[in-house]
Amino acid sequence: MPLMTSWVDSANTPETDFPLNNLPYGAFVSDSGEQHCGVAIGDMILDVTALEADGVIAVPDEEEVFFFGDWTEFMALGPAVWAGFRAAVTELLREDYEDPQGLVRYMVPQVGTQMCLPFTVAEYTDFYASFNHASNVGTMFRGPENALPANWLSVPIGYNGRASSVQVSGTDVRRPWGQLKSPDAELPVFAPCKRFDIELEMGAIVGQPSTGPVTVAEADEMIFGYVLLNDWSARDIQAWEYMPLGPFQSKATATTLSPWIIPKAALEPFRCPTPERKRPLLDYLTEPGPMLYDIALEVGLAPEGAPETVISRTNYNTMYYSSAQQLAHHTTSGCPMNVGDLLGSGTISGTEKDQRGALLEITWGGQDPITLDTGETRAFVEDGDTLTLRGHALGDGFRIGFGDCTAKVLPALEDPYKR
Amino acid sequence: MPLMTSWVDSANTPETDFPLNNLPYGAFVSDSGEQHCGVAIGDMILDVTALEADGVIAVPDEEEVFFFGDWTEFMALGPAVWAGFRAAVTELLREDYEDPQGLVRYMVPQVGTQMCLPFTVAEYTDFYASFNHASNVGTMFRGPENALPANWLSVPIGYNGRASSVQVSGTDVRRPWGQLKSPDAELPVFAPCKRFDIELEMGAIVGQPSTGPVTVAEADEMIFGYVLLNDWSARDIQAWEYMPLGPFQSKATATTLSPWIIPKAALEPFRCPTPERKRPLLDYLTEPGPMLYDIALEVGLAPEGAPETVISRTNYNTMYYSSAQQLAHHTTSGCPMNVGDLLGSGTISGTEKDQRGALLEITWGGQDPITLDTGETRAFVEDGDTLTLRGHALGDGFRIGFGDCTAKVLPALEDPYKR
Repeated sequence: MPLMTSWVDSANTPETDFPLNNLPYGAFVSDSGEQHCGVAIGDMILDVTALEADGVIAVPDEEEVFFFGDWTEFMALGPAVWAGFRAAVTELLREDYEDPQGLVRYMVPQVGTQMCLPFTVAEYTDFYASFNHASNVGTMFRGPENALPANWLSVPIGYNGRASSVQVSGTDVRRPWGQLKSPDAELPVFAPCKRFDIELEMGAIVGQPSTGPVTVAEADEMIFGYVLLNDWSARDIQAWEYMPLGPFQSKATATTLSPWIIPKAALEPFRCPTPERKRPLLDYLTEPGPMLYDIALEVGLAPEGAPETVISRTNYNTMYYSSAQQLAHHTTSGCPMNVGDLLGSGTISGTEKDQRGALLEITWGGQDPITLDTGETRAFVEDGDTLTLRGHALGDGFRIGFGDCTAKVLPALEDPYKR
Repeated sequence: MPLMTSWVDSANTPETDFPLNNLPYGAFVSDSGEQHCGVAIGDMILDVTALEADGVIAVPDEEEVFFFGDWTEFMALGPAVWAGFRAAVTELLREDYEDPQGLVRYMVPQVGTQMCLPFTVAEYTDFYASFNHASNVGTMFRGPENALPANWLSVPIGYNGRASSVQVSGTDVRRPWGQLKSPDAELPVFAPCKRFDIELEMGAIVGQPSTGPVTVAEADEMIFGYVLLNDWSARDIQAWEYMPLGPFQSKATATTLSPWIIPKAALEPFRCPTPERKRPLLDYLTEPGPMLYDIALEVGLAPEGAPETVISRTNYNTMYYSSAQQLAHHTTSGCPMNVGDLLGSGTISGTEKDQRGALLEITWGGQDPITLDTGETRAFVEDGDTLTLRGHALGDGFRIGFGDCTAKVLPALEDPYKR
């Protein structure tokens, strides 16, 4: 599929994340101060809430779907409505649309506009689906003999995360306090995290509910779209707390999402299969077709007031399990899934050191710090650092980009109980 | 404190769960088919939604707090409103109330009335806070040398559960399918759970939000009330999936709550301290006063069409960590807590075999089945069994009861993917 051209000139360049082929869904603070739904096109936002209010666009048989500036209600309407709406917006933004001047008043520049979470996160589940990541972290936490858990090649391992800590790109992250125990200490202390880290992930957003087990094909149909996801992780808190029931406070400070939900439809041309199985899967996890996507990913780290260094480059196509497989597994117990459920892919790491999706892996537990372009070194994230995830699928003369998933780290509170 | 008498005669007996001293909050299906808020008194329900609609009772400066038959909005109004409302309802139901005849039309019999979840579960966190339970389960899963994890005496261990699977007492539970691997098999199979189990727990309901770390005293003030909680657990799925990130599908089929939220105010006379520490706690977990409650608990198991056997009797006062300590720990990372968050205490087990809160422990992993009064034996829960949790605090001539937390187990689907 080639670039589809728009009357919005900035959407017609090979560099933009948001050509007409993309049309991702976001939420922003409008001039009136209210939260509106918007669609990104080039360097602009099409104000969907205002378009609906003025009757320029409508979801058939529905009223005020976008009134609250949240895409959750729209998602609940299902794939036929998603397709119809996408076609209608595509029509409005095509190069040969008859009255572009009539739409100019619905265009808001992305620069300087504050973004919001585009949907209401129902529940958040995080997975552990990169073979390289699981092998690396397992080696560090449990030694090379026990690196890959016995279940890993059969089960898309996941755990429930904390939905209340999910926030939109651009929101600062405060270094947490927690229980830490150094290996040579007998007892833990309560102190600010010393090993604060990122996790480069994709997030799949569930757009349709289920009440019983679903197949991988059905799961794929339930997915509305994808975002970039940074699952901030306090490694010292995690190492002390995670036995035997998994990560808890180490992952509850913040999870940052990129502001635009990339529709599954925009990613269709970039589907690719999961890698060859190292062990046959049980039938219920068999994929009926390619369920991963070829999405180039990178992580940038910029110290306070200094330029950024790209510290990792990898691709979503390296994952062992797809989001559709993860969602299918999630329903096996009869667990009800709801509109707005968020599934983190798990950290995405390639085979090489500079393809790893967490500093824990890149610096091998802090033992081998990296040197930034500024000459500074990093074992883990430092106060004042801004971390940015980026991703895009590359088409013929265009790209389907995700927009920046970025956050700055603030120092820990001096006394967390001082009011 | 003695029994407070009511003009509702059934509330004045030592056997009722719901004397005037209790006044718990529930939700039920009214004659009109709508969900209403209600308060239990003796064997009746006072229809609070109808009282508010008719202007008999009101929350100052608020309108239609109870309109949707859900207590979440009320909880959000905070402790002063909770106290004022409780005083107002107490006044209406006192023996010397001036016009009991005028209230008869707001009274609904509990028998035959369908109950609903009384609040919207925001997120669900489950803990692991009984020393006896952790020692028993740890021994079975990891051997006696590694029974109690190194962190257990310092950290109120918890993990995020699945809010979407929380349901009200009286709702059937379907035996789940899942990945199972027997110890002697090389690979797992996908099959119905063979070791389906209960967990006897208390649930604490968070009634006020927080955005940063809170002290144990502040956490206690955030708690609105308590319920009984049965955290259904698929032990064979759990054993295979839980390494390294904790329970996931094994705990996602269902969690059953008793229908009445017992207000913290009703439990005040029954506060008691946590047991002596086996290791000093970090300051942030220190309790400023008694935070547990003396609540006698029991579990009944009734095979299909047969009478019930009480299979366990224990007390909430045996827990090592209180809900207030758990909630304080939950906030250390800065994790935002919301109105409607539900905290499971963790399985409550005493020191003796017949005081254990899960069949896993009672039958020692199924090796030592129990014999029911009917002569049948049980290693784990069987299809058709009805499991009921009960609990009450014992006052001077009255009790503060929780009402039954009950559910029947249905057989697994023959083919979970057949539509």
